[in-house]
Amino acid sequence: MRWNELEGEACSLARTVGVIGDRWTLLILRDCFLRVRRFEDFQARLGVSRAILADRLDKLTANFVLTRVAYRQRPTRYEYRLTDKGMALHPVIMAMVHWGDEHLAGKKGRPVLHRHLACGCQFDPVMVCSECREEVAPREVQVLVGPGGVDPHHLPPGADRAG
Amino acid sequence: MRWNELEGEACSLARTVGVIGDRWTLLILRDCFLRVRRFEDFQARLGVSRAILADRLDKLTANFVLTRVAYRQRPTRYEYRLTDKGMALHPVIMAMVHWGDEHLAGKKGRPVLHRHLACGCQFDPVMVCSECREEVAPREVQVLVGPGGVDPHHLPPGADRAG
Repeated sequence: MRWNELEGEACSLARTVGVIGDRWTLLILRDCFLRVRRFEDFQARLGVSRAILADRLDKLTANFVLTRVAYRQRPTRYEYRLTDKGMALHPVIMAMVHWGDEHLAGKKGRPVLHRHLACGCQFDPVMVCSECREEVAPREVQVLVGPGGVDPHHLPPGADRAG
Repeated sequence: MRWNELEGEACSLARTVGVIGDRWTLLILRDCFLRVRRFEDFQARLGVSRAILADRLDKLTANFVLTRVAYRQRPTRYEYRLTDKGMALHPVIMAMVHWGDEHLAGKKGRPVLHRHLACGCQFDPVMVCSECREEVAPREVQVLVGPGGVDPHHLPPGADRAG
């Protein structure tokens, strides 16, 4: 399997990795959720080269995760905003932040805290089942082959046909 | 910022990216949750070189995400199992799979479905607030500076001191 084949693979994880599975891309997305929008601001915060930053922003725009919006005329200047598809990555970023908070924080504790404005509480993200709303444990998940099929080569060892 | 500085950064997202923010690593973790454990099985499924696979497995082991367990003597052979710290990455992987399901699935539909054994239903993962148990929308999250501090250079534009 080559990287440029990832997005065509019959695996949603591999396809997602093909779009966002890059270190700079993930840091750019973090900043997008912190409302950073302009090229110079991304560059100043990340300390990344202009070429790499432009490449990653172009890829995210081509994949409709970000959209370019003009904020100034003559010369035209653009900023990058999350689309709905990009906003839908919020659980991915929050889950990664939470794992770092729980397992990689130093002695001083978490670098950043999150408050849920809807209830006013400082909170952690919790992954629950859409149906019973209980927290999902890894061993409670059965993987079934779906309608989009699975390359037999990548069939999970324990996967069953969906009944 | 250099990659080898990522894990020391005062940002839980950056630290997590420093451990798992690599394409092969994410695919290896997917396979771990599908109960793949042996070097040859990872290699056959991923089509990755032995050198890259060994490097990524070593790094995950050094970071206590995986642990090596002997399953055969003379010669000793090891398999790789998720630790509790590794198991805690389940929401990250599920969130990435779900985004791929929702936004990158082809016409045939999802490659894989998930059933929650606790309730018996086919389900999607949903990120909720640990306190009010309601789904968390990106715009409802306020970012506060935590006890672990934040490099001023990386302070989120909208961050406040935790009260």
